[in-house]
Amino acid sequence: MTTAPEAPAKDAAAAAVVPSYVRDSWWTPASGTDSTARGAGAEVRDASTGELLAVVNADGLDLAGMVEYGRTVGQAELGKFTIHERALKLKELAQFLNGHREELYELSYKTGATKIDSMVDIDGGIGVLFTFGSKGRRELPNTNVIVEGPMETLSRDGSFVGEHIYTRIPGVAVQINAFNFPVWGMLEKFAPAFVAGVPTIVKPATPTGYVTEAMVRLMVASGILPAGSIQLISGSARSLLDELDYRDLVSFTGSASTANLLKSHDNVVHGGVRFTSETDSLNAAILGPDAVKGTPEFDAFIKSVVTEMTVKAGQKCTAIRRTIVPAELVDDVVAAIGARVTERVVVGDPRAEGVTMGALASVDQLNDVRDAVQSLVDAGGRIAFGSLDAPEVVTASGEKAVVADGAFMSPIVLTWEDALAPALHGTEAFGPVSSVVGYSSLKEAVNLAAMGSGSLVASVCTNDPSTAQYLVTEIAAHHGRVLVLNREDAKTSTGHGSPVPHLVHGGPGRAGGGEELGGVRSVKHHMQRTAVQGSPNMLTAVTGVWHTGADRNLADPADPSTHPFRKSLETLRIGDAMRSELREVSLEEITKFANETGDTFYAHTDAEAARAAGVFPGIVAHGYLLVSWAAGLFVSPEPGPVLLNYGLENLRFLKPVPAGDSIRVTLTAKEITPRVTDEYGEVRWDAVLTNQDDELIANYDVLTLVAKVWPGQQAPQHTVGQAL
Amino acid sequence: MTTAPEAPAKDAAAAAVVPSYVRDSWWTPASGTDSTARGAGAEVRDASTGELLAVVNADGLDLAGMVEYGRTVGQAELGKFTIHERALKLKELAQFLNGHREELYELSYKTGATKIDSMVDIDGGIGVLFTFGSKGRRELPNTNVIVEGPMETLSRDGSFVGEHIYTRIPGVAVQINAFNFPVWGMLEKFAPAFVAGVPTIVKPATPTGYVTEAMVRLMVASGILPAGSIQLISGSARSLLDELDYRDLVSFTGSASTANLLKSHDNVVHGGVRFTSETDSLNAAILGPDAVKGTPEFDAFIKSVVTEMTVKAGQKCTAIRRTIVPAELVDDVVAAIGARVTERVVVGDPRAEGVTMGALASVDQLNDVRDAVQSLVDAGGRIAFGSLDAPEVVTASGEKAVVADGAFMSPIVLTWEDALAPALHGTEAFGPVSSVVGYSSLKEAVNLAAMGSGSLVASVCTNDPSTAQYLVTEIAAHHGRVLVLNREDAKTSTGHGSPVPHLVHGGPGRAGGGEELGGVRSVKHHMQRTAVQGSPNMLTAVTGVWHTGADRNLADPADPSTHPFRKSLETLRIGDAMRSELREVSLEEITKFANETGDTFYAHTDAEAARAAGVFPGIVAHGYLLVSWAAGLFVSPEPGPVLLNYGLENLRFLKPVPAGDSIRVTLTAKEITPRVTDEYGEVRWDAVLTNQDDELIANYDVLTLVAKVWPGQQAPQHTVGQAL
Repeated sequence: MTTAPEAPAKDAAAAAVVPSYVRDSWWTPASGTDSTARGAGAEVRDASTGELLAVVNADGLDLAGMVEYGRTVGQAELGKFTIHERALKLKELAQFLNGHREELYELSYKTGATKIDSMVDIDGGIGVLFTFGSKGRRELPNTNVIVEGPMETLSRDGSFVGEHIYTRIPGVAVQINAFNFPVWGMLEKFAPAFVAGVPTIVKPATPTGYVTEAMVRLMVASGILPAGSIQLISGSARSLLDELDYRDLVSFTGSASTANLLKSHDNVVHGGVRFTSETDSLNAAILGPDAVKGTPEFDAFIKSVVTEMTVKAGQKCTAIRRTIVPAELVDDVVAAIGARVTERVVVGDPRAEGVTMGALASVDQLNDVRDAVQSLVDAGGRIAFGSLDAPEVVTASGEKAVVADGAFMSPIVLTWEDALAPALHGTEAFGPVSSVVGYSSLKEAVNLAAMGSGSLVASVCTNDPSTAQYLVTEIAAHHGRVLVLNREDAKTSTGHGSPVPHLVHGGPGRAGGGEELGGVRSVKHHMQRTAVQGSPNMLTAVTGVWHTGADRNLADPADPSTHPFRKSLETLRIGDAMRSELREVSLEEITKFANETGDTFYAHTDAEAARAAGVFPGIVAHGYLLVSWAAGLFVSPEPGPVLLNYGLENLRFLKPVPAGDSIRVTLTAKEITPRVTDEYGEVRWDAVLTNQDDELIANYDVLTLVAKVWPGQQAPQHTVGQAL
Repeated sequence: MTTAPEAPAKDAAAAAVVPSYVRDSWWTPASGTDSTARGAGAEVRDASTGELLAVVNADGLDLAGMVEYGRTVGQAELGKFTIHERALKLKELAQFLNGHREELYELSYKTGATKIDSMVDIDGGIGVLFTFGSKGRRELPNTNVIVEGPMETLSRDGSFVGEHIYTRIPGVAVQINAFNFPVWGMLEKFAPAFVAGVPTIVKPATPTGYVTEAMVRLMVASGILPAGSIQLISGSARSLLDELDYRDLVSFTGSASTANLLKSHDNVVHGGVRFTSETDSLNAAILGPDAVKGTPEFDAFIKSVVTEMTVKAGQKCTAIRRTIVPAELVDDVVAAIGARVTERVVVGDPRAEGVTMGALASVDQLNDVRDAVQSLVDAGGRIAFGSLDAPEVVTASGEKAVVADGAFMSPIVLTWEDALAPALHGTEAFGPVSSVVGYSSLKEAVNLAAMGSGSLVASVCTNDPSTAQYLVTEIAAHHGRVLVLNREDAKTSTGHGSPVPHLVHGGPGRAGGGEELGGVRSVKHHMQRTAVQGSPNMLTAVTGVWHTGADRNLADPADPSTHPFRKSLETLRIGDAMRSELREVSLEEITKFANETGDTFYAHTDAEAARAAGVFPGIVAHGYLLVSWAAGLFVSPEPGPVLLNYGLENLRFLKPVPAGDSIRVTLTAKEITPRVTDEYGEVRWDAVLTNQDDELIANYDVLTLVAKVWPGQQAPQHTVGQAL
């Protein structure tokens, strides 16, 4: 990786070209600061003052070279690490970036964002890195092959089985982002791609791409990322899709029209480029009939609507555009929104004290929003609160003035005579604008919400469980996310407009039909799911996870040092196993166990009742007795590399064990997950209980922590037999 | 549902129009049998004899009405049942159809299919119904809301949580199928749609649509399917996509060119129609370097290649088109394929005795395949076995002849000087044709396989685990399925070319980028995944599954009849719970448990060693002792509606319990799954162990079977307290 040059001094050379990051070097057209290089580049201006900040131009960028670099160097370098190792790098990166937030806030003000808006973007983005750094290690294996779902037995004798694996896609992740979240928008796509091991090429939107550039500069400067992990296109990249094929993934966020243009590209339609998009939608918030004025739900609802109108000056793809309320509450709702806006919202330069709503991203954006509001009015909307006039705002110096070059706008509430007007459900004003419309039945509320033709998110605000149940399940298929707001979560909710990294972000239809985030779900979106079939031995070899039916390396009962519990991760291998002696179950012991544990269920204490029940052959051993005995049969008592048994999974009791029968346990190392940050790792053991006739009694997984190394690894003093 | 008219007598009125099934009635254009109604319809002929069988024409069909009927009547009628109820109907349908296979075989001969080919299609299709009938009930809840993945805690205090649910898409499933599997092709798409509760509109391919029609006729005649479950378009339906939007799903199987045409449709690109496609690909089979002549793997490989060339006369989207073998084995492989074909393959009318490979589906198909072979030859391929000349075949009467109107062809093997020739990896001959090409390193073999630009399936034939590991993980991302063939599964494998309902079918890139089957995965492809957020109480209301943090309906310890174990499914409700007394853990009892179970792990027996290990505060209770005691604390001993505890899941020991501490258990009914076929159901209980300071000790799910009704439901003689 070459050394990054110093960031151009943005204040001095205001008209500098924003650099791209290409094949691990910084790049600007020809000589980045002269007027020729600026060429046909787009000018970017401060949203509040109109001051020229930078020029964006990527003319002459070798897009094919970038894609090739990602597919070769990026894939190779990322492939040197496991999923856990990459996840840990994300955590380290997040910690590094946390220390550089202030410089990003400063830059972010220029986009019109308030400090709170910037925190949503910058801290929110870093938060995504933390979440994926953690989830990648907690929820995925420490390899590069993810096994998904149970093994399926495909032949009677178990010699032919199948299952699904995920491996990373063999290309690049092209991430095309919107202007409203220059940092979060990048990181929420970068994080899952990176954990999957797929190199990123990020293309931010022109108006705020200089903030993205600053973030990429920090990421590169951290020295944490392998070569080829990330490349940045600062400027237009119209022909980028020409370079892609089925190995690559395009994740798009932005307008539906651009998404559709990209989706129609020959390489998407014919070439199989994987394509996911997240586009603005006309998200709804539904107020339940129970949530009348005076209820905590009514207050929470009003607060949420006003927040969604004003955070980022309403420039959020998740903002509430349609406020759907009981017809008789429309007036109350409009009045309450107006009152709260009047009381709380101060529009102005975000650098000024007391300002709670900044400018739109640019004067172009402002004009678009005004046009959209006008077309809503033309279609029957009535401005019930606010106005299209240029507002008097607080300037950076704290004065109140109308700023001709600032992209400022007042919050606007529209009401409608005709709740079914297509414009209400189809025309988006991407600013501080929301419509309030009434419904007369829950079914009608559902229909109105669905008229958005697919949305990212909806809120349902009610304290009535059956209303919540009906509304949520009826609207769910039209939405990517539904938030139920009531008195219980009003204070703790992360809000209607905020995607959280744990849950999917995206929605059907107008919302783009894509899916991002959702924890490790989005890591898997950067991978191919493949069915694999073969013998248990071969699937064990392919996945690194031991499969039922595969060979075992059985410990020698005569040599206790061969017990798999005596092996640290240095020497333990998948398939290492032990098989215990048989132990006979007596009626006495069942009775004793019943008395000592208190588990006097009739099947263990009353032979007649047990037989009468029809499911037991008479008195049978407790399942808990069997697994307790199994532990006694497989334990290796002395201190050793197996530190503790922290859990147990998928236990099934398959056959009752009457007194007189005997059981044995076979324990096999199934999956070994060394931790990247600790001196131990998780080992999952396959445990099988069989009886004296080799019939299956129970099976389950035993979860243990095992040390990576164990001094000496000398033979224990007790043999397995003696441990009984 | 109207009564189905008699099936048209195909032999008598050979030129009858194949009916469509529309809004639960049979439909033909105007009057189905006169020559006007046949109009511009396509003629369909017997593949072996050229005899005119039927005409296919859907001119004038009200496609908009069909879609609307599915979205309204179909959705409403299917929605009256739960997932389990619909899955059970599939099983009943499969049983019904099993009794009618003979009449379908008879019809299937006309398509050129041998009896074995027909069994793949017909029995295979019915098999899919059985699998989904079973998996739908075993692996999905008995409701219409599927919860996916764990709950995520989104606020520190647990009052705001989130998770994902699946609900069915609110439109229709349009299934456009290929000619090669007229029955399986329909049923493998119908089954998951039906379980999800989404109405089907099926559009079979013209040449074999009369077989699909016969199957739909049987399905309707069964009387098992709710109204609107299935509609059939026999004929062209070019404008069908004009009627669809984001609520609907199109599942396409067929040529890449048609798939691309549909994918470019405005309603897909702009309208958000969900679209999945499965197109033919140039699937590879790789022979490992170890699998030389004389090994079981070599024999299995040759057998597989010949099978894939000749089953269905090679008209399978999964057939092996590229046989990739060590360079030094090319001659051996070609010779062995030739020998096996010569020995085993008899081409002819499938109705004739001894015929093992029938005709292609039509003379048009035959001409397409011949053209493709010629273009392969023009691009450098050499015909190393077989010929393009019209073969002498066995006719229906058992004679050998060249049949001018029959679509017969000999198996053909091609070899190549240039392993990288684009035609080899890009031109598909959809018949009994395969190319053999050599590689000189495993990396080269991977590259050759990947040159298919995305395939449905590949075989890897080796008995060397590390070769399997390398090849499978390197090619996986280019494939939907990979089969590892070795001596262990050679006899039991279901074969390279056969998708199984348990595993996904589909592949990236050229293979269409779609996914079908895969057990319940494909049911979920007919549903929308939605993130839901809210308080635990609200998510409990929405999903019908109790969530940690939600209210509990605690039993009164003084009134044993309120213990939730005394409630049958008639009275048991989600959230019904009991909280036990505290029970103190003594050193004596730990020691006794260690001695009786044999679990003498040092943490339970040796205070000094336990402390020295650093993870235990001294001697601690066995986790197995704690769960055994918990069972004693929650049990209700007398016979009652809780029939048995059949398992336990997700057990985690969170805090060690030293002697002197006390534990209690809180047990809450979490999920209730009444079986549709039995007098009981599964109840999953949330179990939480806490200590005297209310600290969390362990949590897990207890799995029980509970009777639907319990006579009397009288109070038991022992109280919970006494049960200790």
